Amino acid sequence: MLRPYGSTWKFGVRNQRPVICRQSRMGEETAARIEAATLRPGGVLCYVKWRMQQPDFEKRGGLVTVVTQDADSGEVLMVAYMNREAWEKTLNTGRACYYSTSRKQLWIKGETSGNVQDVKEIRVDCDADAVLLKVHQRGGAACHEGYRSCFFRTADQSGWRVVAERVVDPEKLYGKK
Amino acid sequence: MLRPYGSTWKFGVRNQRPVICRQSRMGEETAARIEAATLRPGGVLCYVKWRMQQPDFEKRGGLVTVVTQDADSGEVLMVAYMNREAWEKTLNTGRACYYSTSRKQLWIKGETSGNVQDVKEIRVDCDADAVLLKVHQRGGAACHEGYRSCFFRTADQSGWRVVAERVVDPEKLYGKK
Repeated sequence: MLRPYGSTWKFGVRNQRPVICRQSRMGEETAARIEAATLRPGGVLCYVKWRMQQPDFEKRGGLVTVVTQDADSGEVLMVAYMNREAWEKTLNTGRACYYSTSRKQLWIKGETSGNVQDVKEIRVDCDADAVLLKVHQRGGAACHEGYRSCFFRTADQSGWRVVAERVVDPEKLYGKK
Repeated sequence: MLRPYGSTWKFGVRNQRPVICRQSRMGEETAARIEAATLRPGGVLCYVKWRMQQPDFEKRGGLVTVVTQDADSGEVLMVAYMNREAWEKTLNTGRACYYSTSRKQLWIKGETSGNVQDVKEIRVDCDADAVLLKVHQRGGAACHEGYRSCFFRTADQSGWRVVAERVVDPEKLYGKK
């Protein structure tokens, strides 16, 4: 990629990997991993082949941990996992896709229940092995038990208590078994 | 445990495990796993030995996933992991303790940096393999890179961008290396 006019470049190391950062005219920073770079005498960058940064799927055996949060209320709805395919499908479709560790397959959230999650923002953590999705939860319930959030129980030394109301009948979500 | 006077009992199945629920006079529900139970003729419970519910550490090789959220703002601060020891230490001390998967040891958050997390509430998810901590973050920064949250970068198809301000100099948190 040729150096675009009007932007400045920084080299650096982030998470123990070489990165190149583009400081755009908007003051925003885009980081990518260098695959190849050529410098002119004096250290002037003249060519760089880069690859857009990806979450670190290698660190935890092919998966990253995903926290899904209601974009409006900030309520944490669920925790799940993504492999590379689920990550790319989420980016490309704007709907939350996970990897089901029990079914061992791609899990398009809401495909059966209709309770699709429309992704409003994606965040990545410092180690790039965890992802935060801010979503709009269609149908009101993220949890297969019919609660808005999977975290419907509180725990302390005296035990666990349900502290939320069911918003959907689970049998209506998946059909009576 | 003898049946306490003035409370009612329900048997049921939750997460594919037998549970007994005590409906106290306060209307709160405490659930525990049955280890042994004796019924009098007619199905009247006369004796039950129970164990307080624990997160499902077996499902993911001894660890549960932990999401840590600012108790006031709702901001997701970090994702980490707990083994049974970290879970019990968190319950007993009221301060967030994790299991460091890189150092392979108990990690008392803030022990080095001083940025302790005071736990205000603990939630457990439907499968009992993920925990949500609502905390007060001392020192303002949960992230070792000096940001309030580890999720300081946003991602979309065009790349990753830092969208938060550093609140602490990381060298001040851990000392210059």
